[in-house]
Amino acid sequence: MNPDITKERKNATFDVEKLTYILDGGPEKTKRRREIESLVFSDPDFNEEDPNFLSRSDRYDQAVRKSAQMILKLREYGIADPEEIYCYKKCVHPDRAEPLDLHLGMFLPTLLNQATPEQMDRFFMPAWNLEIIGTYAQTEMGHGTHLRGLETTATYDPATQEFVLNSPTISSIKWWPGGLGKTSNHAIVLAQLHTLGNCHGIHAFIVPIRDMSTHIPLPGIVVGDIGPKFGFSEVDNGFLKLENVRLPRDNMLMKYAKVEPDGTYLKPPSAKLTYGTMVFIRSLIVGESARALSKASIIAIRYSSVRHQSEIRAGEPEPQILDYQTQQYKLFPLLATAYAFTFVGQYMRETYQRISGDISDGDFSQLPELHALSAGLKAFTTWTANAGIEVCRMSCGGHGYSRSSALPDIYVEFTPACTYEGENTVMMLQTARHLVKSYRQAKEGQQLSGTVSYLNDANLQRVQPQTVAARPTVVDVNDLASLVEVYKQRASILVELAAKSIQQELQRRKCQEDAWNNSSIDLVRASDAHCHYVVVKLFTDKLGEIGDTAIHSVLSTLALLYALHGIKNNSGDFLQAGLLSVPQVLQVSVRVKELLSQLRPNAVALVDSFDINDKRLNSILGRYDGNVYEHLFEWARRSPLNATEVHESFHKYLKPLRSQL
Amino acid sequence: MNPDITKERKNATFDVEKLTYILDGGPEKTKRRREIESLVFSDPDFNEEDPNFLSRSDRYDQAVRKSAQMILKLREYGIADPEEIYCYKKCVHPDRAEPLDLHLGMFLPTLLNQATPEQMDRFFMPAWNLEIIGTYAQTEMGHGTHLRGLETTATYDPATQEFVLNSPTISSIKWWPGGLGKTSNHAIVLAQLHTLGNCHGIHAFIVPIRDMSTHIPLPGIVVGDIGPKFGFSEVDNGFLKLENVRLPRDNMLMKYAKVEPDGTYLKPPSAKLTYGTMVFIRSLIVGESARALSKASIIAIRYSSVRHQSEIRAGEPEPQILDYQTQQYKLFPLLATAYAFTFVGQYMRETYQRISGDISDGDFSQLPELHALSAGLKAFTTWTANAGIEVCRMSCGGHGYSRSSALPDIYVEFTPACTYEGENTVMMLQTARHLVKSYRQAKEGQQLSGTVSYLNDANLQRVQPQTVAARPTVVDVNDLASLVEVYKQRASILVELAAKSIQQELQRRKCQEDAWNNSSIDLVRASDAHCHYVVVKLFTDKLGEIGDTAIHSVLSTLALLYALHGIKNNSGDFLQAGLLSVPQVLQVSVRVKELLSQLRPNAVALVDSFDINDKRLNSILGRYDGNVYEHLFEWARRSPLNATEVHESFHKYLKPLRSQL
Repeated sequence: MNPDITKERKNATFDVEKLTYILDGGPEKTKRRREIESLVFSDPDFNEEDPNFLSRSDRYDQAVRKSAQMILKLREYGIADPEEIYCYKKCVHPDRAEPLDLHLGMFLPTLLNQATPEQMDRFFMPAWNLEIIGTYAQTEMGHGTHLRGLETTATYDPATQEFVLNSPTISSIKWWPGGLGKTSNHAIVLAQLHTLGNCHGIHAFIVPIRDMSTHIPLPGIVVGDIGPKFGFSEVDNGFLKLENVRLPRDNMLMKYAKVEPDGTYLKPPSAKLTYGTMVFIRSLIVGESARALSKASIIAIRYSSVRHQSEIRAGEPEPQILDYQTQQYKLFPLLATAYAFTFVGQYMRETYQRISGDISDGDFSQLPELHALSAGLKAFTTWTANAGIEVCRMSCGGHGYSRSSALPDIYVEFTPACTYEGENTVMMLQTARHLVKSYRQAKEGQQLSGTVSYLNDANLQRVQPQTVAARPTVVDVNDLASLVEVYKQRASILVELAAKSIQQELQRRKCQEDAWNNSSIDLVRASDAHCHYVVVKLFTDKLGEIGDTAIHSVLSTLALLYALHGIKNNSGDFLQAGLLSVPQVLQVSVRVKELLSQLRPNAVALVDSFDINDKRLNSILGRYDGNVYEHLFEWARRSPLNATEVHESFHKYLKPLRSQL
Repeated sequence: MNPDITKERKNATFDVEKLTYILDGGPEKTKRRREIESLVFSDPDFNEEDPNFLSRSDRYDQAVRKSAQMILKLREYGIADPEEIYCYKKCVHPDRAEPLDLHLGMFLPTLLNQATPEQMDRFFMPAWNLEIIGTYAQTEMGHGTHLRGLETTATYDPATQEFVLNSPTISSIKWWPGGLGKTSNHAIVLAQLHTLGNCHGIHAFIVPIRDMSTHIPLPGIVVGDIGPKFGFSEVDNGFLKLENVRLPRDNMLMKYAKVEPDGTYLKPPSAKLTYGTMVFIRSLIVGESARALSKASIIAIRYSSVRHQSEIRAGEPEPQILDYQTQQYKLFPLLATAYAFTFVGQYMRETYQRISGDISDGDFSQLPELHALSAGLKAFTTWTANAGIEVCRMSCGGHGYSRSSALPDIYVEFTPACTYEGENTVMMLQTARHLVKSYRQAKEGQQLSGTVSYLNDANLQRVQPQTVAARPTVVDVNDLASLVEVYKQRASILVELAAKSIQQELQRRKCQEDAWNNSSIDLVRASDAHCHYVVVKLFTDKLGEIGDTAIHSVLSTLALLYALHGIKNNSGDFLQAGLLSVPQVLQVSVRVKELLSQLRPNAVALVDSFDINDKRLNSILGRYDGNVYEHLFEWARRSPLNATEVHESFHKYLKPLRSQL
């Protein structure tokens, strides 16, 4: 154990283990998580070559091997709870996407939700037993978030009682689905349904794409890998071009919408049924943001505690770089953010579970609110985590750029979350739509509930925010409740500003849609402020649940840092709205510095509490024991370029060059 | 040609070619650049396999092949001007680092600058003819920016008249030098010089590391590749461990400092001699920031003009995504920044050339100013470009994540610039040191010159910035000169705030060093504001040189957008200092939106003016002809995973799995 990091751990003022329980949701959850981790990490069947040293084809090959093993072991151990499967999977493929992700996460659940009993009989058990391996082919080369724009067609032919599927343009080729390129033999394909001369919009079809025995693509199917990406090297994200592919009528998923043998179309009972899944997945992504940022913080903070560099005082030994104020200023607000997002993720999961009962009883009343919140928080947390990971990487200097740090991998595996499951700007605008609608309802006298209820209180006479001058005196920058209030006011004012911008555009005779587009900068800003308020509020609320005094104290410091750092970074909003005075903003800067010093002794303990196993972290800089340099050297020597002392290029190009010059 | 992009080009209000001349520095420079590009791009010897489809070893191999060809061709064509070599190289390896970079960029120049005539005879011609291939081994595993901390030792042994070189600790192993791992047979090694019992600090030694004929590492030399990185896959960044390596005395570079045969040490005449090179390289990096951000903007803006998605008005065709205000808000300020940084890069190069005459005459008077400016601007521009590239990538949705977009490569090849040649935070603090020193000099009545001269004018009685309330009325947010002024005032106030923070810390009985460290957040902020001011000023100054009315008009719009966007993003600073009023800040937001609309018709033409050849850009999304989708499909089909219809992993793992479940 590196003596610096040992010393850090001795300085902690709280019980690391107890904080881990809070993060996991209780000691029994921690215990079970560790059991599962140990099942994977002690299992020689999951040993792997460092993917950094492999070609893409070998990475894919290794991932398929491990995924197949994983399916066997899950059955063997009887692990069936979705959360436990998720945990197991995240250890087998340490936070990497893998070829069976869409089979497990989209193909099987979609069958469960949308297949008729007859279709369940035909498809579910073969898929459960990996005879059928499926993916979910929604995105096309030309269309992502805007589903209505999808171009793939499924035209019903009553003569043969078949659908004829086509990719009518290049841009209609299915593009991006994970596992589509090489792994899957079936795909759930989303296509525009045409029957009896009418188009009924997007519906889902089960399409066999490869021969069950030979795995060779079926006639009319052009399928393959879409090529290398920033990350996701283990996954065969694929393309699929359909050329007059004929499907039996009962391959359309018909639990809700139906096409009868004669081609008659029957509408689904409700359009809101797919909402729930989206909310669930976006809530999960909030948790992923927390996880990715936690990992990056662990690496950067542990490394900063063992790295010595330069000097603060002449003649003294080189300090740990964590003693530099600039380093603390980079890392501690991100650490606070990782905690904040963890608690927000917990809240979203719990809320979803709480109201999913209502949803299955057909009560959708809380769904619009939760839908808007999950969209905004998905965007807010992924953008923040995305930028934060890179700050962590660069805070490790050159070594952060080495693949051995794991930071490049954390980034490239995480960053697609800003795009998939709803592009972030589009998500922010969805939230804004809900906010503006709620604002108008409140203005019309309706009583709002949920996270937007602050729009009830809003002083709706307020036109020019800068005239509000009475408020600043009541804000106490050391009091979280007071800060929640000021974040709330900011959100309220920015929602109002956005709504007024739309109004002004309409007055300039713009149509509703152009008025919206011309206000969209303000709308995104309002959503951002709303989400920021929610995060500060949920973090503050969480403190109320914490009994342990020492933990309560350190988490309060983190929450305060999170809130004040956000004010410092957005001070223009608070000043502009007259919510804080100039002396208060200066005071915030001073307090932020004090909080950094206050957190310094607990920094390593706070990242230890995330309790991410070294094998899952897979980072030399972030090793628990802090023994960075020895292992960096040992890792480098295993680089494939070192397999021979002399690379063949010397004999091929460099030596011959001499005689030519 | 894609009809959308054709239409965009027709809408331009200015002559694209003429703007290219301005960016290149004159029509003759454009002509020569295109000649060189054509030499490379029409040369079949430089055809390459798409590196995205190769293993790292094959990428390295291909790069060595091309570098060897490049050396031959440069001789053949008689290209010897450093700028022309640089241009040729940037086409051969399109903006990628390559194995001979350090040989050409550091080894040869260091010999020229620091070798004695006798050493030139022994080393220069063999190095020029690629018998000697060298690198520059400064950074160690444990030390980067802080040179004095380097641990490698060179101990003089008068008995044999040799130096004995050692890597006494693991952290002292040389780490990161490009071309060190496999390519070089020599290295200039920086080591602590010990002679006659005294240490004289860092000196440079020419160390043979591999046998000239077999290329096998010499005795006492442990050398190899440091393993895969985020990018730089073509480069064998290496490690070097020295175990009692004995070197003849005259392998120390002795143009300045000397060790005599008896071990007597002779000091160099001036310590400032190495300053010039650092300034030069950091100035180049400013240009690289501009280049990287230009490329990312080209890709994102061209793609946004051919990508149609979603709807603004119901029932109408899907708009180009460039018509969304949010997309313009992401991309146009970055486009403006790319222009700003291009002009700053030009200024830095010219200034360096202007005063390098003084330097060689021994007049270093302007060097501290230029040194501070180049350090700060290196950090300011690389951080901005770094984040901006990722905004461009994510603005392309999913396809930005594909390697075919080139955006991942632009990012990973560029991002080390935030770390190398001086870690950015350290750079900002160096600039701050100059600013605080200048501030104190001004306060003591000295008259400052250069970019810091505004500290002369500063109202030095000003203690609480918020009390300055008279100024706002004079700012005209539509007038660039007025905005330069307000940026200057902001810088002045933030320098003052930082200086006062140090003062306050000293009053709390902190020592000078701790006071500095405890003020470093404010110091970085002051440097950032200083650099921001310089960029706005130089962009504005540049407009004065532009005669063409149409170009002047569009560049003025860009400059205004750059300045106002910066105010919007830092509105807290301007409000806090009382430099702008709340209504003015609101007005800035409105103006920014108007400027986006104003730039919209010229967006594609403005990126065309960067005149980056498709072969250099190497991006399917950024193609000049806009034909994105066809080429995306064609590229994907060449993915190595598509070499066979069925990947072997199906037979190895997936098919056998069926019988086991």
